[in-house]
Amino acid sequence: MKQERLSEEAIAEALATLDGWSRSDDGIAIEKRFKFKTFREAFGFMTEGALAAEKFNHHPEWFNVYNRVDVRLTNHDAGGLTELDVKLATAMDKAAGERTKS
Amino acid sequence: MKQERLSEEAIAEALATLDGWSRSDDGIAIEKRFKFKTFREAFGFMTEGALAAEKFNHHPEWFNVYNRVDVRLTNHDAGGLTELDVKLATAMDKAAGERTKS
Repeated sequence: MKQERLSEEAIAEALATLDGWSRSDDGIAIEKRFKFKTFREAFGFMTEGALAAEKFNHHPEWFNVYNRVDVRLTNHDAGGLTELDVKLATAMDKAAGERTKS
Repeated sequence: MKQERLSEEAIAEALATLDGWSRSDDGIAIEKRFKFKTFREAFGFMTEGALAAEKFNHHPEWFNVYNRVDVRLTNHDAGGLTELDVKLATAMDKAAGERTKS
């Protein structure tokens, strides 16, 4: 099912609610850098994020080096941000909150 | 324990043995793009790679979007390629070989 793109108002509201996400330069995504104490914590976070992604059938773009995970969320089908991005970002904030951070 | 940097001969030999890895433009790393059928297969591969990384205490730089995983291996402590990069690359080739590819 194709998702509706969020309005600018809805995006602003989501960013105010989420923890430390920002709009990408190209405007079509939200981004966040997560930092943990170790690779083990970082990959534990990624595993939980992967399970959430499969559940929502909506997947992140993410880069990991050691204890750092850079995440970018966008909806390619919709050509911008949708409710699924907000859901996945929320799940990732929760997963990170349960882990030790650097 | 700090690892010794590989000689140019040893790097050439490793690249000839490994499956589809190439030297990075800056010369200090090896890189490979892995493609799978699904995110599930890609993340299964990453999980196995993460376990190998913890075992070797040597970690990849990697980017994932859906069924694609771009991996870069280098040894920051040594400032170049070491035996650990070859070991991790070999383990990743093995992990990918056990999975369905696109």
